[in-house]
Amino acid sequence: MANSASGDSVVDRVVRVIEAFPEGVTSLQLSELADRSGLPLSSAHRLVRQLSEHGLLDLGAGGTVRLGLRLWELVNRNSPTLALRQAAMPFMEDIQQVLNQNVNLAVLDGWEALFVERLSRRGSVANRARIAGRMPVHISSAGLALMAYQSRELQAEYLEQFVDPSGKLTAGVVRHLLAEAAQQGYAQLAGVVDPDTWGIAVPVMNAKRRTVAALGVVVPLAEMRLQALVPALQTAARGIGRQLGD
Amino acid sequence: MANSASGDSVVDRVVRVIEAFPEGVTSLQLSELADRSGLPLSSAHRLVRQLSEHGLLDLGAGGTVRLGLRLWELVNRNSPTLALRQAAMPFMEDIQQVLNQNVNLAVLDGWEALFVERLSRRGSVANRARIAGRMPVHISSAGLALMAYQSRELQAEYLEQFVDPSGKLTAGVVRHLLAEAAQQGYAQLAGVVDPDTWGIAVPVMNAKRRTVAALGVVVPLAEMRLQALVPALQTAARGIGRQLGD
Repeated sequence: MANSASGDSVVDRVVRVIEAFPEGVTSLQLSELADRSGLPLSSAHRLVRQLSEHGLLDLGAGGTVRLGLRLWELVNRNSPTLALRQAAMPFMEDIQQVLNQNVNLAVLDGWEALFVERLSRRGSVANRARIAGRMPVHISSAGLALMAYQSRELQAEYLEQFVDPSGKLTAGVVRHLLAEAAQQGYAQLAGVVDPDTWGIAVPVMNAKRRTVAALGVVVPLAEMRLQALVPALQTAARGIGRQLGD
Repeated sequence: MANSASGDSVVDRVVRVIEAFPEGVTSLQLSELADRSGLPLSSAHRLVRQLSEHGLLDLGAGGTVRLGLRLWELVNRNSPTLALRQAAMPFMEDIQQVLNQNVNLAVLDGWEALFVERLSRRGSVANRARIAGRMPVHISSAGLALMAYQSRELQAEYLEQFVDPSGKLTAGVVRHLLAEAAQQGYAQLAGVVDPDTWGIAVPVMNAKRRTVAALGVVVPLAEMRLQALVPALQTAARGIGRQLGD
């Protein structure tokens, strides 16, 4: 693979350009893109032009760069989460209808919950779990539900490296939260992300009883009815798991 | 940019590898990926390994290759359709609730409608408009609604090159369909894709009255009530347009 003078490969540079967009930012000026990806303007321009020819980027008038519609199409039509999302969507709609709350679906990626699908109700409480958003395991009910059913080895590895940037939680507390979630069959977190909301999540297990996702809702504290929410979520999670098979 | 012996650049090869996945196929064996992308197995392997290191692909045990969760995340969190989909989603949910039918949102890309969002009801009629699926303008109500409000120049260019692969439609008939849609404020197509369904779509215009999307439903013929469907769609489309601004 060909290397530039600075020693990075073309593949590295392609990745740096795609990664240069901060979360939720859909367009960047070419000069800012060059800055953020650490490339000389001329190299960035050449690379952007090449990627634009293939529709992976979109280079507009005035040097505005966006991710290309073609890239979005390619990634979404063959998404690694396609089967999971297709299996889950009807059940998520059921939950949304029955509970009238925000519903989300997350997978474990590293030590974070990555939200792969979301349904939100207008008028419902804010849900910070955006599609393609992330939250650390220890501050999201989805993350706790995902981690609580992983192997002992993985949990140990997670707790081993655990440091709470806010200094509020110790690994011991997180270990307790995980054990509690595993024992109860659901995870709940009150007011960690938003002071007036409560997150509840349950594991989604495939036919091999491997936890492949977490299904959750975010509800206002005043509407918190665990005895109604948890059975509905668990029922939907079992339905998703059955659809998924192995 | 460095070229291989065959003259294609690294960027070209990256694109060919990402494009090699057929629609809806989420994993390929490395050898098949090499075949489909027209690369020697050794080059394909090296490229896949490099892209895997960055999470753009996922090279699993046994040589199974998938698009990477990281690529999915990067593309979706900064999607070129993010603002449109965020503006549209609550209104699409309203339509789904009120009409109890499949709802979809499409943008014009080339001479095709590219479906960027979809909500489907369990038990409702089949809707072939998948997310990230495409349909030619002339056989989708979304496509007709999108094209009917483009500039005369773009419409002329479209009709100029128009050939119906099935030989059923002439450019003259499509011109008539577009004129009808523009005059009525909506497009409808009965039984073209599925014999027992009807598609209805209306344009979504931004504050500058530019048609940026089409909002549509797919309903069973027996439930076709234009006088109810069209006003609901038009109301929702205006709401989306207002959210979008310019």
